[in-house]
Amino acid sequence: MTALENIVNEIAAEMRLRTDRGEVASYIPELAGVHPSAFGLVVIDAEGKVAAAGDCDTPFSIQSISKIFTLTLALGKAGDRLWKRVGREPSGSAFNSIVQLEYERGVPRNPFINAGAIAVTDLILSGHQPREAIGEILRFVQFVADDSTIAIDEAVAASEQRTGFRNTALANYMKSFGVIDNPVHYTLGVYFHHCAIAMSCRQLAMAGRYLAHGGINPATGYSVIQAERARRINAVMLTCGHYDGSGEFAYRVGLPGKSGVGGGIYAVAPGKASIAVWSPGLDANGNSRLGRVALEILAKRTGWSIFGGDRPSA
Amino acid sequence: MTALENIVNEIAAEMRLRTDRGEVASYIPELAGVHPSAFGLVVIDAEGKVAAAGDCDTPFSIQSISKIFTLTLALGKAGDRLWKRVGREPSGSAFNSIVQLEYERGVPRNPFINAGAIAVTDLILSGHQPREAIGEILRFVQFVADDSTIAIDEAVAASEQRTGFRNTALANYMKSFGVIDNPVHYTLGVYFHHCAIAMSCRQLAMAGRYLAHGGINPATGYSVIQAERARRINAVMLTCGHYDGSGEFAYRVGLPGKSGVGGGIYAVAPGKASIAVWSPGLDANGNSRLGRVALEILAKRTGWSIFGGDRPSA
Amino acid sequence: MTALENIVNEIAAEMRLRTDRGEVASYIPELAGVHPSAFGLVVIDAEGKVAAAGDCDTPFSIQSISKIFTLTLALGKAGDRLWKRVGREPSGSAFNSIVQLEYERGVPRNPFINAGAIAVTDLILSGHQPREAIGEILRFVQFVADDSTIAIDEAVAASEQRTGFRNTALANYMKSFGVIDNPVHYTLGVYFHHCAIAMSCRQLAMAGRYLAHGGINPATGYSVIQAERARRINAVMLTCGHYDGSGEFAYRVGLPGKSGVGGGIYAVAPGKASIAVWSPGLDANGNSRLGRVALEILAKRTGWSIFGGDRPSA
Amino acid sequence: MTALENIVNEIAAEMRLRTDRGEVASYIPELAGVHPSAFGLVVIDAEGKVAAAGDCDTPFSIQSISKIFTLTLALGKAGDRLWKRVGREPSGSAFNSIVQLEYERGVPRNPFINAGAIAVTDLILSGHQPREAIGEILRFVQFVADDSTIAIDEAVAASEQRTGFRNTALANYMKSFGVIDNPVHYTLGVYFHHCAIAMSCRQLAMAGRYLAHGGINPATGYSVIQAERARRINAVMLTCGHYDGSGEFAYRVGLPGKSGVGGGIYAVAPGKASIAVWSPGLDANGNSRLGRVALEILAKRTGWSIFGGDRPSA
Repeated sequence: MTALENIVNEIAAEMRLRTDRGEVASYIPELAGVHPSAFGLVVIDAEGKVAAAGDCDTPFSIQSISKIFTLTLALGKAGDRLWKRVGREPSGSAFNSIVQLEYERGVPRNPFINAGAIAVTDLILSGHQPREAIGEILRFVQFVADDSTIAIDEAVAASEQRTGFRNTALANYMKSFGVIDNPVHYTLGVYFHHCAIAMSCRQLAMAGRYLAHGGINPATGYSVIQAERARRINAVMLTCGHYDGSGEFAYRVGLPGKSGVGGGIYAVAPGKASIAVWSPGLDANGNSRLGRVALEILAKRTGWSIFGGDRPSA
Repeated sequence: MTALENIVNEIAAEMRLRTDRGEVASYIPELAGVHPSAFGLVVIDAEGKVAAAGDCDTPFSIQSISKIFTLTLALGKAGDRLWKRVGREPSGSAFNSIVQLEYERGVPRNPFINAGAIAVTDLILSGHQPREAIGEILRFVQFVADDSTIAIDEAVAASEQRTGFRNTALANYMKSFGVIDNPVHYTLGVYFHHCAIAMSCRQLAMAGRYLAHGGINPATGYSVIQAERARRINAVMLTCGHYDGSGEFAYRVGLPGKSGVGGGIYAVAPGKASIAVWSPGLDANGNSRLGRVALEILAKRTGWSIFGGDRPSA
Repeated sequence: MTALENIVNEIAAEMRLRTDRGEVASYIPELAGVHPSAFGLVVIDAEGKVAAAGDCDTPFSIQSISKIFTLTLALGKAGDRLWKRVGREPSGSAFNSIVQLEYERGVPRNPFINAGAIAVTDLILSGHQPREAIGEILRFVQFVADDSTIAIDEAVAASEQRTGFRNTALANYMKSFGVIDNPVHYTLGVYFHHCAIAMSCRQLAMAGRYLAHGGINPATGYSVIQAERARRINAVMLTCGHYDGSGEFAYRVGLPGKSGVGGGIYAVAPGKASIAVWSPGLDANGNSRLGRVALEILAKRTGWSIFGGDRPSA
Repeated sequence: MTALENIVNEIAAEMRLRTDRGEVASYIPELAGVHPSAFGLVVIDAEGKVAAAGDCDTPFSIQSISKIFTLTLALGKAGDRLWKRVGREPSGSAFNSIVQLEYERGVPRNPFINAGAIAVTDLILSGHQPREAIGEILRFVQFVADDSTIAIDEAVAASEQRTGFRNTALANYMKSFGVIDNPVHYTLGVYFHHCAIAMSCRQLAMAGRYLAHGGINPATGYSVIQAERARRINAVMLTCGHYDGSGEFAYRVGLPGKSGVGGGIYAVAPGKASIAVWSPGLDANGNSRLGRVALEILAKRTGWSIFGGDRPSA
């Protein structure tokens, strides 16, 4: 067993004993029914070696983690023109706040809060039929993960659509400022579907490898995005990836990451590893509680924090 | 000439030709009188080699950059108890906003906005006379810079005190919630004085070396702070170091940094270098315009971005 | 000619000469096409004598003035239970602000801002088909005006529906907090239709007489609402009837009133008169500019201000 | 006993039995020590007949009720130029909110929230010594009350000054925008002193008579202010006199009024009566709980609501 496998197994064992798991999201039955004690962790290093532990092959709803992939896709399609529609500053408020939109005339602060991700989705849609855009996003995720079995959980998508009044408010509000081009229900249809993509930790860690390695998937050798853009997506993850807990995540973990309300977190150790963790219980900011704890321990034991390793040895 | 010296000299030469310098701060005469074309850049690498260009030995008012040193000092004195007084999330608003204080009952969002830095200063003061606290802060800066000639510009401190109504409002507002312990004018006196410390780029790059090297000043070997705390200060710099331009700085430069309204920026390439740049013209968020541009070029040419280097070569 | 007729005619003549008319609402073509120089004024005193001048029989889009009638109707149907859904405090912000809804968990501040009127409409709808609710509201307006020719301008309703993204955002936002019971597009359908009722100043002054006379229409003798409720609707008009210009209207005019973006204002001199004025140009707060000026002069010349008449004569 | 005396006595008797008195202000010892069961009510009609009940001759701290008198005095001195310094719209937030000041660049919404009253005080001070301005305000109150025994409670003023961090924040914040001319501690010194004026219900009802009678004190015949200005002060009281409970007060009571945290409320029935009530227990908005209830009953039994009396009798 490698040192990394040891660390990953230890962390999974420690997490199994923890009881402070937070609350599983309950706004739709498909999420509410997930077992709170599930835990998975997968780390893929630069050489492609996989260290996996726990429920690492159980698919879960990736939810807002999908925003990494739609941002990558939209930057590829629209280029830096995207940044006219959405900012890249931390929001200083909750994931679904509408206050900032009023003060900044409909332009969301960053692509990782709901409003921003809806604006990014609208750019991907741009005149196509929702079904085509959904297909394009799914195929992109399958491509970066090199796994054509990844699918959308239609029951989740339908539940989101049925209960998504807050997101509908955000989209209509942006539409009133001209920040959304397509019919609102088209854009939201695509948004709700890509949030309903189901993936396991293993699939997610595979999918994100291009972010750890200058925009190239080292397994396939395919270039997904320019190196500079990969870096910049990592920067936006670091400052904005955990809603109003982004500062806390940077402070404790020290890795760029993006959380989803399904309990998953995708994280990057630039140049070193692609990481996915899953624990469904959430903290007050809507981020996986034990997921964050596990990553904090991982960063400490590996010395992967982007903010500096340990002291130079004497 | 080393490769790093070459890069530093090239950047200084390029910056000399730029005309988009932004506006020099004008709220006090001492800052308004600074020549807008001044530019200095100093980079000290892990081995202690110094690459310096431009006005690298001219002292300037470090202003909010002093917040790095007061945070370090306060963490050393009060430990994690400090985080009960101040958060570590980006604020999503301007450096002197009072709105957030009302919604969050007097607790500032992070130690790098004015309110947060005033709360940190109050912790350092804790029962002492202002003059003693000012002396302690100055001696700490002299110690980490290994330079006893560093001094406070008393004219700047006096001007700040005379015009600092907004900061006085922030301090009184926090006091009304019990977040400030000492008499408000004591705390503000110390705050205005440490913001008025004058340093050159060379002195500043020397002073911050412990942040790049796990809390140890590699030149002197002295331990300034625990390695974990150094990392965490870097994390807070990354998410909060440039007010409402922090996301932009992370996106473009990719290094933890802290700006001051005097036109200085201190930045860290963890494990690699301690960096200080100075150009007095500011952008709309109050950050040095060319300072940021210079650091963006530096990070690109050195590959020091913490968010990933270039693609793995074939 | 009576003294009141004289005053009304004089005001109309003075208004005809004014050039500072403000801007006609332009967000839908039906409003944008209204001639800016139109002006009508009708005052009906306690004895039922009508003083009318200008374009007093031209129907215009009453828009938010309809909120008086839906509030009356909803209070009749739901009683004080209505106040669990909507407050009765001035909003301190624009007519379509969504910020307050976030801070107060989806409960609008008063029934005269858009969000509040949508919540009131939802109460009237309560389980019926939209068409039935629209019919009920229209019949109520015809009843209080004693005029069955009053109709809805379907072109206006269709335009509102096509462009009403902000209102759709407000409604969905409230729905996410459970403040809206019916399907959002049902509630909005009814809302857009009652805002599209077209009335002349004469019809409007007739319709509101119950508010001036303790809840009874003195012409027909029919009791529309309890006396206390009529008073209270007047109170809400005074504090909230002109969005973020309500204080200004109270200060200058001193009468309870409700404005609409079509340029109409309905006002009450309690116990004395029912008043309607129309001038399509709007001020920065979205209230009829000359309409307010005309009412200010009227209140001054009649001594009808509810805040006190002239000094006691010696 | 007159009908009015009967009503006043009945109300006092009813209030004596009530147990839902709210909480007495406790931020300074002088207010915290007031007996919660105190209750006074005085009504002076247009002929000068006084109906008084309960603790109607016990002086209490008038606190924010003093803002009526400073507004009257400042309008007399500065005229409508005053409205460049302070608005006249309801604030939609608490009495000591600072949020609005940030969004509206230091200009308070109205003269009856703390920030607005501080700005008005600054106008009265305008270059004089604080002691002179305090004397001028006190003499003005003595003049309108026709009672030279009215005094400032120096212990209250000293306590306010010692604990008034929030007001100090508001004043410094406005100063930073140039809305305050004088040294902040001068302006606040005057403000804290006029809030500390002690008056009985009888003195207060006497003092406000000019507001009920077109600007003239009917007892003395002295003109205090123009009739139009008296009306307008009443209008601002109606829309802004009870902080974020102003709409509620208008809705329930229907009279212009101004509350103070000492438990007093001054109210006007224009043309009919000058009214003062005192009950120290406060509701959540900081307004006297039983004071409001008493005025609601008074307005109902007298038919004095400015929003309409009862139905016309058949």
